[in-house]
Amino acid sequence: MRVLIVGATGLIGKEIVRLLSTEHQVIGASRHGSDLSVDLADKASIVSMYQQLGTVDAVICAAGAAKFAPLESLTDEDFAFSLANKLMGQVNLVRCSGGHVTQGGSLTLTSGILSLHPVTGSAVVGIVNAGVEAFVRSAALELRGKARVNAVSPGWVSETLAAMGQAYSAGTPAAVVAQAYNRSLVEDITGQVIPVKKS
Amino acid sequence: MRVLIVGATGLIGKEIVRLLSTEHQVIGASRHGSDLSVDLADKASIVSMYQQLGTVDAVICAAGAAKFAPLESLTDEDFAFSLANKLMGQVNLVRCSGGHVTQGGSLTLTSGILSLHPVTGSAVVGIVNAGVEAFVRSAALELRGKARVNAVSPGWVSETLAAMGQAYSAGTPAAVVAQAYNRSLVEDITGQVIPVKKS
Repeated sequence: MRVLIVGATGLIGKEIVRLLSTEHQVIGASRHGSDLSVDLADKASIVSMYQQLGTVDAVICAAGAAKFAPLESLTDEDFAFSLANKLMGQVNLVRCSGGHVTQGGSLTLTSGILSLHPVTGSAVVGIVNAGVEAFVRSAALELRGKARVNAVSPGWVSETLAAMGQAYSAGTPAAVVAQAYNRSLVEDITGQVIPVKKS
Repeated sequence: MRVLIVGATGLIGKEIVRLLSTEHQVIGASRHGSDLSVDLADKASIVSMYQQLGTVDAVICAAGAAKFAPLESLTDEDFAFSLANKLMGQVNLVRCSGGHVTQGGSLTLTSGILSLHPVTGSAVVGIVNAGVEAFVRSAALELRGKARVNAVSPGWVSETLAAMGQAYSAGTPAAVVAQAYNRSLVEDITGQVIPVKKS
């Protein structure tokens, strides 16, 4: 398969590239340093990326930023940034994919555990993740027969926890998280939120 | 209790006003024709409404618009309108409530069944409803001890179905939906999505 990976230089994206490159032709996209350049918050740059890309069998997105901060310190700009980036960026990746994904191809987005299991600071991240999950359910319905649409919910990633000074073992290593993205390629599922199984 | 009802002139809002007025002091807010004027999509008008309101024991929001249309015909403006209105409007109603809700007071937002059970046309409505549900989970956590935050998920409302040319009996009458909003006032719950029980 020919597979586009958006966020190819990120913590999870790098592991998805590594995993899928053994079997597939992988094209990476990110803001800098990949085969293609894209800024998820800028719809025109998504359109431009697809024009350069041509056609693929699958699109995987492991990109998208959202602001983590206590509710009382989140600003209007933090909400707008997060909705434009991790939420609408991924929505637009699906909306703009028409003509660039083969019939029955696979589109995979990234949500996250904070949609259902909040912690202090996760107000807008939770909104964004839940929005992505609801969107794949509805988009799957409307794109049935054209493309499959799923989201991976990575849970807490070991490397992220370690960077936050917490126990690496409490999370799932990014290399294991990457395997969940392979499920949406090879399994005939759509409209699903794919959980990450620890090791 | 002194209760603010935002969306007091709407299909569900009118029934909430009718139900709660027998026991509580109800102050209505809506774009036009209520005690207070508010445009959910305009944060400054929310701030102004709270300033005129003073302090209440509970805020109920049964307002907020989102665009219902097939995914391929939804425009960038439809997404922006819906996120600004039913999602960020209700989020801002909570964000701006500080100092206007008594200690331990109740904030109740409105989500909807399309977050989990999409139909053709519900892509952005689903995003918005799921975002509201995720937000009440996280806001409840961060406002614990200050205020309770819940959402009512009304399901399909009989009067809405009838207006769409579908069977009234397939939905729940607005007067019954209104009873779910009373639960968030009287029960000691927070961070919950309250389902509507038919009749």
